[in-house]
Amino acid sequence: MSLLDRLSLNQITTQRWDLQQAVDGCVRHEVPWIGVWREKVHEFGAEHSARLIRDAGLKVSSVCRGGFFPAATAAERKSRIDESRRAIEEAALLGASTVVLVCGPPFDKDLAGARTMVAEGIAALVPDAASHKIKLGIEPLHPMMLGQRSVICTLAEANDLAAQFPAENVGVIVDVFHVWWDPALYTEIARAAGRILGFHISDWAEPLPDIIYGRAMPGDGIIDLRRIHHAVADAGYRGPIEVEILNTAIWERPGDEVLSEMKGRVVEHL
Amino acid sequence: MSLLDRLSLNQITTQRWDLQQAVDGCVRHEVPWIGVWREKVHEFGAEHSARLIRDAGLKVSSVCRGGFFPAATAAERKSRIDESRRAIEEAALLGASTVVLVCGPPFDKDLAGARTMVAEGIAALVPDAASHKIKLGIEPLHPMMLGQRSVICTLAEANDLAAQFPAENVGVIVDVFHVWWDPALYTEIARAAGRILGFHISDWAEPLPDIIYGRAMPGDGIIDLRRIHHAVADAGYRGPIEVEILNTAIWERPGDEVLSEMKGRVVEHL
Repeated sequence: MSLLDRLSLNQITTQRWDLQQAVDGCVRHEVPWIGVWREKVHEFGAEHSARLIRDAGLKVSSVCRGGFFPAATAAERKSRIDESRRAIEEAALLGASTVVLVCGPPFDKDLAGARTMVAEGIAALVPDAASHKIKLGIEPLHPMMLGQRSVICTLAEANDLAAQFPAENVGVIVDVFHVWWDPALYTEIARAAGRILGFHISDWAEPLPDIIYGRAMPGDGIIDLRRIHHAVADAGYRGPIEVEILNTAIWERPGDEVLSEMKGRVVEHL
Repeated sequence: MSLLDRLSLNQITTQRWDLQQAVDGCVRHEVPWIGVWREKVHEFGAEHSARLIRDAGLKVSSVCRGGFFPAATAAERKSRIDESRRAIEEAALLGASTVVLVCGPPFDKDLAGARTMVAEGIAALVPDAASHKIKLGIEPLHPMMLGQRSVICTLAEANDLAAQFPAENVGVIVDVFHVWWDPALYTEIARAAGRILGFHISDWAEPLPDIIYGRAMPGDGIIDLRRIHHAVADAGYRGPIEVEILNTAIWERPGDEVLSEMKGRVVEHL
């Protein structure tokens, strides 16, 4: 498969578009995959969303997101797990193979305790994932996002977590923005062989305009995208390559311009 | 020694004060140690600075900073090493035992190459450090600062680097703001036993107001300061505890108010 046959639009990249518009954009620009966000799917309902994606001839690379496991009470933790179960069911309806897990921030200063709750949450979901033939992709997020998004912030830790479960059910997502800085990156990508469920790209422009909404177009930053891409390929990953850019400035631009540019950047920089 | 006998004002915390004002502030608030920044020392000259610190009865906990090793040309790399040599000479004049190394950002996308240049730069400095009886403290910086400050961004990597040199000459600095997120933190603090040359505290308020200038007063964030403090103590560290806060809002406040507050926070949160 060529790079462009593997290209996926993570729909947060065109945040102003609804799912129909994003699907239409993918068709216009011959982007064969789409990574969906649940809140965008809910605007149309999962069944209608599944139909409009299928009718357009697109495939779903991932569903974002389940997770957010740590919480102060057992009831709240259960409700987070239940919500992740719904994400699994929706992913099955949408014909996706993977639900991305953003594991959640801590609720107090006890990071070790929060990390245990993440492991317990994933364990609770594995039977549901297996019965729906959906894989859970643990996405380590950049350490600067720990307090807002995820106590799981290195690929080493994601690999350790995934290894507690069968490879048929649990793996990891490699997003360059989150892991590029890590001195253990290439060791951990190699270790993730057989468990890599997704590859997300964007870039890190310096200075970074915003912690959450400051990701750059691939090629506009300092990440060695090609080296990471090759490492992921060497680890056996042949799946979709999702362009996932959370950036308020890029969101202001016309979606068609963004899709056109991202296609060119993938060819140029991977 | 009690906590307050170990307290050090890293003078960037009172950024608007010059060295004389910071020394006077430490005397007024009975803070026995000061961590100095070279640009502040240069305003008075190293010899005069040494005299005014000594005459006030203060001790220098560290000199910030040497490093910034990676550069595109051999000539530029040599000039960075030469500058770090001057930092060592100034530290000796000031009666400090440690120069903090902020290792420097990469100059292109090759992080591995930049990391090799860091190791080479430290190797070049070790004889100078040894002859001046100054220790080099490798400070891993938060991964979000990689592109602006340091390719060395985990304590594991700092420990690996330090281990290449004698413990009499090279160790590590543990700054809670930079390392608190790390799942390997407590393992690596234990591994650093005998090599910990400094302990810096501040806090991580969420949301973080700024990547470089957004650190919080100890106790105003989500870092488990006490647990890290105990781990550092368990690893045998008994040296100064530097309060190092880079925060433009705190810099606006009267220095005496900041010193008074930081003393209380250290007692309350460590």
